[in-house]
Amino acid sequence: MSLKIYNTLTRRKEEFKPIQEGRVGIYVCGPTVYGHSHIGHAKSYVSFDVIVRYLRYLGYKVLYVQNITDVGHLTDDADQGEDKIQKQSKVEKLHPMEIVQKFTQSYFEDMDALGVQRPNISPTATGHIIEQIEIVKVLIEKGYAYEVNGSVYFDVSKFPEYGKLSGRTIEELMAGSRIEISPEKRHPADFALWKKADPNHIMQWDSPWGKGFPGWHIECSAMSTKYLGQPFDIHGGGLENQFPHHECEIAQSEAYAGKPFVKYWIHNNMVTVNGQKMGKSLGNVINLKDVFKRYHPLVIRYFILQSHYRSTLDFSDDALEGAKKGLEKLHHTVRNIRSVLQSSKGKNVRIDFDGYKKKFLDAMDDDFNTPQAIAVLHDLSKEVNFLLNENSATFAELEIANKLFDELGNNILGIIPENLDIQKGNNIESELIDFILELRKEIRARKLWELSDKIRDELNKLGIIVEDKKDGVTWRMK
Amino acid sequence: MSLKIYNTLTRRKEEFKPIQEGRVGIYVCGPTVYGHSHIGHAKSYVSFDVIVRYLRYLGYKVLYVQNITDVGHLTDDADQGEDKIQKQSKVEKLHPMEIVQKFTQSYFEDMDALGVQRPNISPTATGHIIEQIEIVKVLIEKGYAYEVNGSVYFDVSKFPEYGKLSGRTIEELMAGSRIEISPEKRHPADFALWKKADPNHIMQWDSPWGKGFPGWHIECSAMSTKYLGQPFDIHGGGLENQFPHHECEIAQSEAYAGKPFVKYWIHNNMVTVNGQKMGKSLGNVINLKDVFKRYHPLVIRYFILQSHYRSTLDFSDDALEGAKKGLEKLHHTVRNIRSVLQSSKGKNVRIDFDGYKKKFLDAMDDDFNTPQAIAVLHDLSKEVNFLLNENSATFAELEIANKLFDELGNNILGIIPENLDIQKGNNIESELIDFILELRKEIRARKLWELSDKIRDELNKLGIIVEDKKDGVTWRMK
Repeated sequence: MSLKIYNTLTRRKEEFKPIQEGRVGIYVCGPTVYGHSHIGHAKSYVSFDVIVRYLRYLGYKVLYVQNITDVGHLTDDADQGEDKIQKQSKVEKLHPMEIVQKFTQSYFEDMDALGVQRPNISPTATGHIIEQIEIVKVLIEKGYAYEVNGSVYFDVSKFPEYGKLSGRTIEELMAGSRIEISPEKRHPADFALWKKADPNHIMQWDSPWGKGFPGWHIECSAMSTKYLGQPFDIHGGGLENQFPHHECEIAQSEAYAGKPFVKYWIHNNMVTVNGQKMGKSLGNVINLKDVFKRYHPLVIRYFILQSHYRSTLDFSDDALEGAKKGLEKLHHTVRNIRSVLQSSKGKNVRIDFDGYKKKFLDAMDDDFNTPQAIAVLHDLSKEVNFLLNENSATFAELEIANKLFDELGNNILGIIPENLDIQKGNNIESELIDFILELRKEIRARKLWELSDKIRDELNKLGIIVEDKKDGVTWRMK
Repeated sequence: MSLKIYNTLTRRKEEFKPIQEGRVGIYVCGPTVYGHSHIGHAKSYVSFDVIVRYLRYLGYKVLYVQNITDVGHLTDDADQGEDKIQKQSKVEKLHPMEIVQKFTQSYFEDMDALGVQRPNISPTATGHIIEQIEIVKVLIEKGYAYEVNGSVYFDVSKFPEYGKLSGRTIEELMAGSRIEISPEKRHPADFALWKKADPNHIMQWDSPWGKGFPGWHIECSAMSTKYLGQPFDIHGGGLENQFPHHECEIAQSEAYAGKPFVKYWIHNNMVTVNGQKMGKSLGNVINLKDVFKRYHPLVIRYFILQSHYRSTLDFSDDALEGAKKGLEKLHHTVRNIRSVLQSSKGKNVRIDFDGYKKKFLDAMDDDFNTPQAIAVLHDLSKEVNFLLNENSATFAELEIANKLFDELGNNILGIIPENLDIQKGNNIESELIDFILELRKEIRARKLWELSDKIRDELNKLGIIVEDKKDGVTWRMK
């Protein structure tokens, strides 16, 4: 099988063929840095992290660009309202660039914790004002845009393909969105490329149309094509950005360059909380920093990958507890494999490892079906566990199993770290626990049962579960 | 006493008076991100971190801006050679912005490890091309700069104060530096504001003078005054940047705005390695990531603060071992204070805590004399230790001591973290070790001496030293 990707532009799964052989350019809309990241961000960036990891696993040289929006994103997600960052800067009494600094740092902290590999380039909107102005200039020259009172708008009537991503006509699109009254616009669907700045607007730059700031959509057109060329392979983002954001990007870039913008559009679905839409107005936005207090970030990562990126993900305590148990099962198997591996012998192999690997890769090839891929890992885990419990696993079996869990579970999915102590505990914790269990053995040999029980109970209080088995004692974190 | 700062501009210690009451704007030249940070970076940014922390301690609202140089810094540190980032991008076969991404991340990782608080704003040179072009335009209009073949140079003959920071005439300055033959320049001391780009130069932008990129010096003029205004309070940087970099910044900014640029210039001195200058050509550059493998980052921080920021710092294994011991002594005292505090009683106070605090602050007020301030902490440590060893320390004494070490050693110097387990070990390590020592007590009560000794030896192997004292058992990391 070969990789198939669901392309929003064509609304079907297509075989993936990069524009330039062996190379993939991918751009994903990054966060607007005016607050801490929430679980919606986690779903998006974990999903694209696995997509990028898988493309790299397949041998592609991937250039992954993900922007930081630090200007121009207004409170209504369109052309009205206040700049989100400037608004927050008033609340916190800080310069807008201090807000940007603070929440960019917070974002990467959270993504690092989730095992999301950093993009190759994280360009900022304020760092590409010149490039944005350049596109706007050309769009005016070509007749696709017009200036009114120091603002510049894109004239959607000049771009007949407007709506092709969401698959609707301009009229349908407008009917579905809040109608916005702007006397400056020729057509209500026209959108801002450049906005005139009020004198009290802190983030503003000189332009051929006077002092102002770029519209939200133009930054992604400018930064994606600057680093990836046009057309490039994959553009990703959240489903909620399909319209107007991505529709506008297509219009701007294709009108500007007179050639296609993007070959494959990938959209991840949204997060719900206990079945409800998540949103500020509903007061149910869950920040990652809060979740991380209760669950290890890898549990959140596993939870996200347990559902497909195009499915909604419902966030609830029950579901997270389930994810925690599921991940722990996998880790338990791998930990046991590693601890028994060195002492095991024998060359016979009774497990169809190639079959498991094929099933895993088939799942990933089918539009990155991570829930299916995880299910394959669990099936493999069960079969290996059976041999381990029987005490019959051979060295050859354990060695292959260990490598396969690393290749599929670590490299591609990022849920089985090389150092399982990340889950188990850090630094010399494991060594200390092993030493305590060794002491317990000696204490039991001396028949000091009371002390032996105390050790078990005290470790339990510290969240460490001791398991006595016929071939020795093992332990795991609760 | 009040704060006195050695101002390089006047070559004497001056009383510090901010331009706007209660507020301080400080700009420090940040790294050029084309390689991993070395101990020279550590000295500079730890020094300025303590300066900023102390200003905040004194009650100032500090806005700390530190740039990231991601374009325009050429290999000769002047106007000749290749862009350092573009050069590295060829070596690594990556886009220059990937190099920027990689080493910006690496830089902040290292600084975070050293306890260096993030600047409020970390602007990038590529993010401020418009602002740089604007200054160059005005300098040409005012007759301070001239264009030749798409490059723009600052005419030092038009700025008679050129040389005032380093205190030398143009002729003296030129005699001391490599003489550079550039037929484009009217005077050899003239410096580039904007450089014409070769077609193969990746990092380039449109400008009124054609495609090009900014000179190295102009970015700091543009970014400092954009966020801090002109004049602003403090400009910091390494001594090696006094000339030409800072001299050029002054010329550009004062010629541009017709008013002073900066009130106080602070320069930190350099690092030597075993008495030799550190440099790429000498092959003795020591990267922080390598040092951190051998020493905890707080040891490096302590080592740096043990010498004054205006002194050179000689890096050697002996010196680092000494620093490690010195820091451990302080931590040992604070750890003991905290462990005895809860069980101690009594209200009498026999230590002159106010006197120690005054001595500490006097040292800091004297141009941030951190070696002197650390010496005061050691004196205090000795006096507290005496009482602890005598078993006579009262609750009141320990409580004040604990607060004072936190206020001076943690808040200001950043060398005594709240959680001393950072040094001692992470997570539940401490609890496990405490539990092992409790087991050992029970084992000793049962007269199992062999097992008791084994515990001591095994912990020792893991790097944990057990100390039996009359009032109980304590432990510390080697």
